[in-house]
Amino acid sequence: MPVNTPLLDRVTVPSDLRKLPKSDLRQLCDELRAEVVDAVSHTGGHLGSGLGVVELTTAIHYVFNTPKDRLIFDVGHQCYPHKVLTGRRDRIRTLRQKDGLSGFTKRSESEYDPFGAAHAATSISAAVGFAAARDLKAEAGDKSEEDRRVIAVIGDGSMSAGMAYEAMNNAGDRASQLTVILNDNDMSIAPPVGAMSAYLARAASSGSYQGFRNLAKQLTKNLPKRVRDLAAKAEEYGRGMVTGGTLFEELGFYYVGPIDGHNLDHLLPVLENVKDITDGPVLVHVVTQKGKGYQMAVDKGDKLHAVSKFDVVSGEEKKSVSNAPSYTSVFAQQLIEEARKNERIVGITAAMPSGTGIDKFMKEFPDRTFDVGIAEQHAVTFAAGLAADGMVPFAAIYSTFLQRAYDSVAHDVALQNLPVRFAMDRAGLVGNDGATHAGAFDTAYLGCLPNMVLMACGDEAELQAMTRTAAEFDEHPIAFRFPRGEGAGVEMYEAGKVPLLEIGKGRIVKEGTSVCLLNFGGRLSEVLKASEILGARGLSATVADARFAKPLDEDLIRRLAKEHEVLITIEEGSIGGFGSFVLHFLAREGLLDLGQLKVRTMHLPDRYQDQASPKEMYEEAGLMAEDVAKQALMAFGQEPQAADARA
Amino acid sequence: MPVNTPLLDRVTVPSDLRKLPKSDLRQLCDELRAEVVDAVSHTGGHLGSGLGVVELTTAIHYVFNTPKDRLIFDVGHQCYPHKVLTGRRDRIRTLRQKDGLSGFTKRSESEYDPFGAAHAATSISAAVGFAAARDLKAEAGDKSEEDRRVIAVIGDGSMSAGMAYEAMNNAGDRASQLTVILNDNDMSIAPPVGAMSAYLARAASSGSYQGFRNLAKQLTKNLPKRVRDLAAKAEEYGRGMVTGGTLFEELGFYYVGPIDGHNLDHLLPVLENVKDITDGPVLVHVVTQKGKGYQMAVDKGDKLHAVSKFDVVSGEEKKSVSNAPSYTSVFAQQLIEEARKNERIVGITAAMPSGTGIDKFMKEFPDRTFDVGIAEQHAVTFAAGLAADGMVPFAAIYSTFLQRAYDSVAHDVALQNLPVRFAMDRAGLVGNDGATHAGAFDTAYLGCLPNMVLMACGDEAELQAMTRTAAEFDEHPIAFRFPRGEGAGVEMYEAGKVPLLEIGKGRIVKEGTSVCLLNFGGRLSEVLKASEILGARGLSATVADARFAKPLDEDLIRRLAKEHEVLITIEEGSIGGFGSFVLHFLAREGLLDLGQLKVRTMHLPDRYQDQASPKEMYEEAGLMAEDVAKQALMAFGQEPQAADARA
Repeated sequence: MPVNTPLLDRVTVPSDLRKLPKSDLRQLCDELRAEVVDAVSHTGGHLGSGLGVVELTTAIHYVFNTPKDRLIFDVGHQCYPHKVLTGRRDRIRTLRQKDGLSGFTKRSESEYDPFGAAHAATSISAAVGFAAARDLKAEAGDKSEEDRRVIAVIGDGSMSAGMAYEAMNNAGDRASQLTVILNDNDMSIAPPVGAMSAYLARAASSGSYQGFRNLAKQLTKNLPKRVRDLAAKAEEYGRGMVTGGTLFEELGFYYVGPIDGHNLDHLLPVLENVKDITDGPVLVHVVTQKGKGYQMAVDKGDKLHAVSKFDVVSGEEKKSVSNAPSYTSVFAQQLIEEARKNERIVGITAAMPSGTGIDKFMKEFPDRTFDVGIAEQHAVTFAAGLAADGMVPFAAIYSTFLQRAYDSVAHDVALQNLPVRFAMDRAGLVGNDGATHAGAFDTAYLGCLPNMVLMACGDEAELQAMTRTAAEFDEHPIAFRFPRGEGAGVEMYEAGKVPLLEIGKGRIVKEGTSVCLLNFGGRLSEVLKASEILGARGLSATVADARFAKPLDEDLIRRLAKEHEVLITIEEGSIGGFGSFVLHFLAREGLLDLGQLKVRTMHLPDRYQDQASPKEMYEEAGLMAEDVAKQALMAFGQEPQAADARA
Repeated sequence: MPVNTPLLDRVTVPSDLRKLPKSDLRQLCDELRAEVVDAVSHTGGHLGSGLGVVELTTAIHYVFNTPKDRLIFDVGHQCYPHKVLTGRRDRIRTLRQKDGLSGFTKRSESEYDPFGAAHAATSISAAVGFAAARDLKAEAGDKSEEDRRVIAVIGDGSMSAGMAYEAMNNAGDRASQLTVILNDNDMSIAPPVGAMSAYLARAASSGSYQGFRNLAKQLTKNLPKRVRDLAAKAEEYGRGMVTGGTLFEELGFYYVGPIDGHNLDHLLPVLENVKDITDGPVLVHVVTQKGKGYQMAVDKGDKLHAVSKFDVVSGEEKKSVSNAPSYTSVFAQQLIEEARKNERIVGITAAMPSGTGIDKFMKEFPDRTFDVGIAEQHAVTFAAGLAADGMVPFAAIYSTFLQRAYDSVAHDVALQNLPVRFAMDRAGLVGNDGATHAGAFDTAYLGCLPNMVLMACGDEAELQAMTRTAAEFDEHPIAFRFPRGEGAGVEMYEAGKVPLLEIGKGRIVKEGTSVCLLNFGGRLSEVLKASEILGARGLSATVADARFAKPLDEDLIRRLAKEHEVLITIEEGSIGGFGSFVLHFLAREGLLDLGQLKVRTMHLPDRYQDQASPKEMYEEAGLMAEDVAKQALMAFGQEPQAADARA
C-alpha cells in the first residue's frame, strides 16, 4: 500500500520542516507516522517507540536548530521518525539491513546523530559532555558556540538505570543550558518497575502546570523587576505543589510538565519556552503512548516494541518458520525444570523478561522472579546478596548488557566467590541489532577473573545440560553463553534425563587423526561442516567441543595437541578469550616448543561489525565452515581455494 | 602510649556489648575511638571515616542482633571500630598487613561481615538481596528468618554512584524490612559534588523531626486506632515539611532524620524505632563528623582519610623517604604541561582528585576540571560527549574503578571511536588495599575492544612520553596504565623535551642474543635485573619494552621471535592481555610451527591476592627478577635453583 505523503515529500531535512506553518504540522505528523509504519512493515524493527514520539520528534526539530543544536536520543530505537526527517528517508526501507541504515542513532550515519546509542541511559551523560564542550569553547571566545543548545530525549524505562541518575546528579550542579526531555510512556520493553516508575505515574497524573505558568508570565511581564522576582518565587513554590516534580527539582533541574506528547499545541510552546532557559538544566516531562496512531501496536501488550516484517492492515508479523526451538526458550524451560526441584532457585532480569525467557519463569514462579529495571549493576550485586544467604540466583543478562555490571561481577561476585549463575544470551554476533548488541567480549572479560567458571554451548541440548549444571554447581560463580536465535536442530534431552556436566571437561564430538578443530560455543555445527569439507580433501579431522573456557580441560587439550599435527580453536568471541587460554596452556606446557604442532586461533575480528543477518555477519567475520576448513588447509600448506565455496 | 580501655576489655563480640547498660556506652565509645587511633597509628590505613562512625557502629550492634541481623558496610573502610567490636580486636594491629586483617569488610574474615566491600555503593544492592533471601525463606516456612533484619550503612559520597540509586529504586518497590543508614559527613575522600550532595546539605540543615515524632507517638498511643491513623497521616505530611526528606520518600523509602550521629541519646531510640518497621524500607539520615574525636584528623582537609603510620600526639605521619617521584605526580605534571599548550585538554575525575593527581591539574585549570562524583560510568560517557565535540578529555580513573565504566568504554567510546584518553593509575598489584583494588584486568578487558590503543609504561620517563602521546593522538581512544607508588628512579625528560611515541612501536632496552624478555608495563626494572642474573649464568638476554599491547609492534615481535631461542612476555596483568596478544600473533604468523622458538608468558596468577606490600605481593605472584630468570633458565632446560635468590 503506497503511502500518500504530500507534505512529508517537501521535507528532506529539518530546515525544510521549519519553513512549514505550524498549522501544517499535524498533517505532517500523520504522514510521518504512516511512512514509519510502512517502512517497518518491510524491514522489521522497533516500531512502538518510534510511533510514540512522532509529534515530539517533529516539535523538537521545528523548535530547535538541529544539527547545530545537539539532539541526543537515548537508546536510539525510537529514532526512525528522526531519520526520516533528517535526510535519510530515501534509505529508510533499508533499516537494520546489511549496508542499510542502523536501527539506532549512529554518528557515522548523519550529522543529525551527534551521539550514537543502543544501550540505555547514556544520553544525559553525553549531553552533559556536549554542554560542557560548548561552555568551554564559548568561554574561550568562540561566539558561535554561545547559542548552541543540547537536548537529550530519554524514556522513563531508562530512568531506572544508575547512569541516568549519575548524569542528572552531575548536571544538576551546573548553570548552563541543557534540556532533558523525559519521554514517559509508562513502558520500556516491558512495563517499567521500581519506585521511579511509581513516582512518574504520580507526577503524570497531576495537573499540568504549563497553563498556570504562561498566565503568570503574561501577568507579570510588564511589572517592575522586584515584583517579577517575587512572582517567580511564588511560581516556583506553586509549581512543586501542582505537578509533583519535586524529585527532579531536588536534583537541581527545573521541572516542566507533565505535557501531552501528542498535542502539538502543548509541545511547541513549551519547547519554545525552555529553549530560552540557559542558566541551568531543565527536565520536560512528556507523556506519550507507545505505538500511538497504529491501533495494532497500541493493542499489543508490548506495543509492537520490536517486530518482524508485518502486514500493515492486519498487523500480523511474517515470522519465518523455525526449525528448532530458540536458545532462549530452551534455557527458560530448563530453568523452570530445575526450579521445580529446588525452591532456592530464583530468576533475575534487568528489564528484559521476554528477551531472556524469564517471563516464562515468572509465570510459574512469580515470587521467585525479580525484574529490577534497567539496572544491571544492581541486578548482579543483588544476586550476590541472594547467593551469600544460600539462594541459587540465575542472573539472565545478555552478554552485551552484562558489560554494564562488570565491576559487580569482578568485585562482588568473583572476588567473594559467590555462586551467582550468569545466563548470557545473545553471545556472539546478533544480526540486525548490529555492533552495539554483539556479545563479543564476555569470554575475555569474564575469563580473566579468578574463581569464574565459564561455559559456552555448542547446541541447544548442551544448553539444557549447562543450565542444569549451573543449577547444581555451587562452588564458584558460573556463567554460560549461548547464541541469539534458534538452535542447531539437534536431538534434545527428555525432561528428567538432562545430564550433569563435569566441571572443566570437554568432549570429543568426532574422532579424526590429522587436524583437531577445538570448538568453544555456537559455531559447532559450522565446525562439523568444516570437518566434512576437510574429509573430502583427504584430511581426517577431530572435532572437539571444549564446553569450558575456564577451567580448561587440560588433559583433553594436551592429548589433542600431542595426537594432531594441526590444532585450531574456534569461538564466536573476541581475542583474549578461549583461544588465548589454550595458547597460554600450550606455551606453559612446552607443547609448542618442538615444532610438532601447528596451532591457529579463530575468533571475531578486531572491529565492530555493522548489522546484517547473523549469517552475513559470520561470513564477514570469517567464522563459517569454509573459513575453518581453509584455515586448516593453509596450516597444512595446501591450497585453500577449493575449500572456499564463496571464493 | 598504651590505651586504657577497661570497658572495651569486657567486649569481645556484640553480645557482650548488649549486656552493658546504656549509660556505659558513652565511655565505651571513647575507649573504642582511642583504640582505633592507636591501632591505625601503628598500621596506617583509613582513619577519619572510622572515627566518624564510632557511636553509630556501637549503636547498631547494641540495638540490632548481629550477626543474625545482616549488617553491610558500604566501601568498608570505615569498619575498623566494627572489627574491634566483632571479635577481631586481638588482630586489629595487623590491619592491611600481610596475613593480617583486611582494611575492608571481608566475608572470609568474620561472620559479622556478611558482604565484603571496598568499591563504593554496593551495600544497598547486597542488602536488597539479603532481604529478598530472608523473605523467600520465611515464606517457605523458615520461622527463624522472620525476625532477621538487614541494615546497610552507606556514606553520602557513595550516594552519587548510580548503583545506589538503582538499588533504592528497586528497594522502594518492596514491602519488607530494610534499613539504610545514610552516614552523611559531607565528605567522602574529597568534598562530595553534585546535586545529591547539595540536597543532603539542605536536608541536614533542616530541623530534626525526631523530637516531634516521639512527642506525637506519646500523645497518640492511647487513642483509638482511627485517631492514631489520622495522626500518622498528619505526621507523614509534617515530616516532609520539616526535614526535606522528600527525595527519598519519592523513591519509596520512609525517611527519618537528620540525626546527630555522635549523640547516643538520639541514635539509640531512633534505631530502636526503625528496627520495628518491617513493611517497607527506611532511610535513616545520620549526620557525623569525619575524624570525630581526634583533633589531628578533624583539622586536616581530608580528615586523615587514609594515612601512613603516625604519631598519636603530634598527628605527624611517618612517611617513608621516596627515591623517585610518584607515577601519579609525573602524570599530573605532564598533563599540566600539555594543557598549557592545548586549551582543549580537560581533566575528569570520579571523586578521586588527589589519588589521580587531578587536584594539581585543577589548581591551574579549575574551569577545565570536572569532578563528577563517584560515577565512573557517567565520567566516561561524559568524556565521550566532550570528545565528540572536539575537546581532549583525560579520564583519570584507577584501573580497578574503570571496571565500573566498562560498558561506557565499549559502547560509547570504543564503538564510536571517540578519542577519550584513559589514564589508568594503580595498574597491577597495589599493596595494602589488597585484592579489591588490584588493577589486574584492564589489559584484558580493554585489549579485546576494537579501536582501542593500549599502552603501559615501564618507568616514569615513559609515563611522561605516554601522557604527551595521548594528548596529541586523536585517531582512536587511547589508554595508558601505570603502577601505584614511586617511579623506578630513572632520568626524567626535561620539560619541553618529552618525546612523542610512535603508535604501536616498542623499543629495545638492552640488546642480547639467546633469550628475549619482552616486557609490557611496570615490571621493567625487575626484567632488567633478570637479564643480569641470566648474564651471570652465561645467557645473553635482550630486554624489549613493548610499550603497546594494542596495536602490537608486529615487526619488532617478528624479529625478536626469529632472533631468539626463547621469548618470554612479562606483564603485571591477568591472563587475556599482552601475552595473549603476542601468542595469537605468533600463532597466526606460523612462528611457532617450526620448533625454533620457545615462548612463555608471565602474568598475574589466576587468584585474588590478599593485601601485603607490593613487593610481597609480586613475590607471591612470581613476577620478580628471580622468577623471570628462572622461567628463562627452565625454558633452556637449565637448573633454575641458582637463579632463585629466595629459594
